[in-house]
Amino acid sequence: MKFGGTSVADIERIRVVARHVKREVDAGNEVAVVVSAMSGKTNELVSWTKEIAPMHDAREYDAVVASGEQVTSGLLAMGLQHIGVDARSWQGWQIPLKTDSSHGAARIEDVDSDLLIERISGGQVAVIAGFQGIGPDNRIATLGRGGSDTSAVAIAAAIGADRCDIYTDVDGVYTTDPRIEPRARRMEKISFEEMLEMASLGAKVLQVRSVEMAMIHGVRTFVRSSFDEPESINTQQAVGTLICDEDEILEKEVVTGIAYTKDEAQISLRRVPDRPGISASIFGPLADSHINVDMIVQSVSEDGSKTDMTFTVPNGDVEKAVKVLEDERDDISFEALQSDTGLAKISVIGIGMRSHAGVASTAFAALADKNINIRAITTSEIKFSLLIDADYTELAVRTLHAVYGLNQ
Amino acid sequence: MKFGGTSVADIERIRVVARHVKREVDAGNEVAVVVSAMSGKTNELVSWTKEIAPMHDAREYDAVVASGEQVTSGLLAMGLQHIGVDARSWQGWQIPLKTDSSHGAARIEDVDSDLLIERISGGQVAVIAGFQGIGPDNRIATLGRGGSDTSAVAIAAAIGADRCDIYTDVDGVYTTDPRIEPRARRMEKISFEEMLEMASLGAKVLQVRSVEMAMIHGVRTFVRSSFDEPESINTQQAVGTLICDEDEILEKEVVTGIAYTKDEAQISLRRVPDRPGISASIFGPLADSHINVDMIVQSVSEDGSKTDMTFTVPNGDVEKAVKVLEDERDDISFEALQSDTGLAKISVIGIGMRSHAGVASTAFAALADKNINIRAITTSEIKFSLLIDADYTELAVRTLHAVYGLNQ
Repeated sequence: MKFGGTSVADIERIRVVARHVKREVDAGNEVAVVVSAMSGKTNELVSWTKEIAPMHDAREYDAVVASGEQVTSGLLAMGLQHIGVDARSWQGWQIPLKTDSSHGAARIEDVDSDLLIERISGGQVAVIAGFQGIGPDNRIATLGRGGSDTSAVAIAAAIGADRCDIYTDVDGVYTTDPRIEPRARRMEKISFEEMLEMASLGAKVLQVRSVEMAMIHGVRTFVRSSFDEPESINTQQAVGTLICDEDEILEKEVVTGIAYTKDEAQISLRRVPDRPGISASIFGPLADSHINVDMIVQSVSEDGSKTDMTFTVPNGDVEKAVKVLEDERDDISFEALQSDTGLAKISVIGIGMRSHAGVASTAFAALADKNINIRAITTSEIKFSLLIDADYTELAVRTLHAVYGLNQ
Repeated sequence: MKFGGTSVADIERIRVVARHVKREVDAGNEVAVVVSAMSGKTNELVSWTKEIAPMHDAREYDAVVASGEQVTSGLLAMGLQHIGVDARSWQGWQIPLKTDSSHGAARIEDVDSDLLIERISGGQVAVIAGFQGIGPDNRIATLGRGGSDTSAVAIAAAIGADRCDIYTDVDGVYTTDPRIEPRARRMEKISFEEMLEMASLGAKVLQVRSVEMAMIHGVRTFVRSSFDEPESINTQQAVGTLICDEDEILEKEVVTGIAYTKDEAQISLRRVPDRPGISASIFGPLADSHINVDMIVQSVSEDGSKTDMTFTVPNGDVEKAVKVLEDERDDISFEALQSDTGLAKISVIGIGMRSHAGVASTAFAALADKNINIRAITTSEIKFSLLIDADYTELAVRTLHAVYGLNQ
């Protein structure tokens, strides 16, 4: 069970979390709980680190910021004991949950689960401080913001949990953003691969890294609400979305969901020499400047010696990207550089696409019918993405949601 | 160097602390710093533990409450790096500073100083989270409120420090409370034994346990102000009070200081049988009820078969003590029980008393001259204490301060 910051925002909310845990224990489950810091605490701690030193040692940042989850883990263990549930807190270094040395954004390398399993099997709930582990330098290492999801999945994998329940402020993963399309449906199940596309394309429910880890280790992950009355929930028929292996999904939809990201920008380099290494000369300098390049489309011009390179970057990186490319102009030798901001990427996702042809053409027709211009297209095995003007985002999402039969 | 909660109350104060540390480093010193939690933080954490569960697991309490010092240690390390001082934070479990298993009020058992010494010798300031260590159960153990002083002295002993500087909100130890006697003088030096009497008798500068530990390990402890401008201080001639071995004190005063505690109460048991074991039958039950008995005076009555037992307890414990004694009335078989509240204990302290007779009689005469009635007297090798009505506290303190030549 994993509870985020809003679910443990104050003592009253931590009491509710304790009741959720008790319900599962009473139902005969052996439980480990991963908790985030109380909502707002991490921001307070981070602001202090910035105030004392704008450029600071990531190892010290980790020592400061990890204290938030330490507090919550102790308080929840107390809250559980108070209602008669045997429990103890575990800090990352006590388990130990070992990470690499990338302080501030560490990756989990190993979880020593023997002691945890022994205690959990003995009926003691393990309350684990999320977001943190211990690095090879014997110092606290945090996993980066939102890392508690990743902690939870890693712990679930290490102790061989049947399921990892992520309690959050929504009751599952929807076919699209319900704020845009009220007829969006909660999915009962979604495959790891699809969820990975949904997560990285703008569905904010789960951290991308946690889904990757769940996929690698085959951890069945259940997204559910922490705002229901704990005792009102039937543990056998809980409401939520199960993220699982596609083998567990009997009826595979061709399209499972529509995701979107706004704030995309497009940059085009006109009449670039079509020679080997040209991509490296463009995208190498951008990567060196930590600019995240996404959709890349290369079109060959008439005589075959020149090409147009078009790609997207986040709106906020446009100026920087243009400057980087102008600095490299002699090396790349493009004839013109154009940039457009205010674009959106709409993605259509479904594992069923693997065995169905012509899925994308339905979208092209539907969007043309609404006079929405498609600026670029990229495809992969289980999704395709369309770049459009951001003004049309909501219309495009609703149109595609309807045309692929996702409306309730 | 040790800095308490008010000295690290916010980022601005932590910056000042960093400058104090830099001054010492620049003067060629190798430095370890022990820090408390930011003022108010420990209270906030403690209140949460009480709110979630009035009766709570001391191990979880420790995990929650120790986070305050963790934050300060990280922030100060950052603040030091920011002004060009090499530094790193150390949590109790990282050193490790090993304690016994008495969570919430643990005692330090051992400090592994090898790694600390290696780093400090290499020029890196060690910023240590005070108030905490790690118990035999591999869990965080706190030393009890005010334990950061004890941490500092223990660390100083372990690394063989020349001196342990306690930075606080006063600039040293005074001959008596300056709020009562403005002519009180700051002492340049005071012996461990005297400071122990001063500390346990109401001078709030240092925790008693830290002075005991300093005495046992011979740690020269320097009480000084954290509110002076860091760079204005001459490191060779710093202002403060050095607590040291009496051998280091060349001119031994007969009387070094006057301490006092208000809120004392007196209980008298009249005509108790004067038989072996009578003290145990009185003080055993009081000890079992955690009532701290202090001055005990036994006076033999006329025929020698009965005795009066008079002793003091804190005002707040009087009712409880009376009830305990009434419950034991059959066993003790006293004839009457009297209690008085609103008393004060005035103590006169000085290692010179060992070699001077008649020191106390000067006090008796001086107080009699002011019509202050002495209700009880106890003496030890280096101090004597007088029980008087609390109304006369200030007058008695000033009278004794003058009569023993302590006025400036």
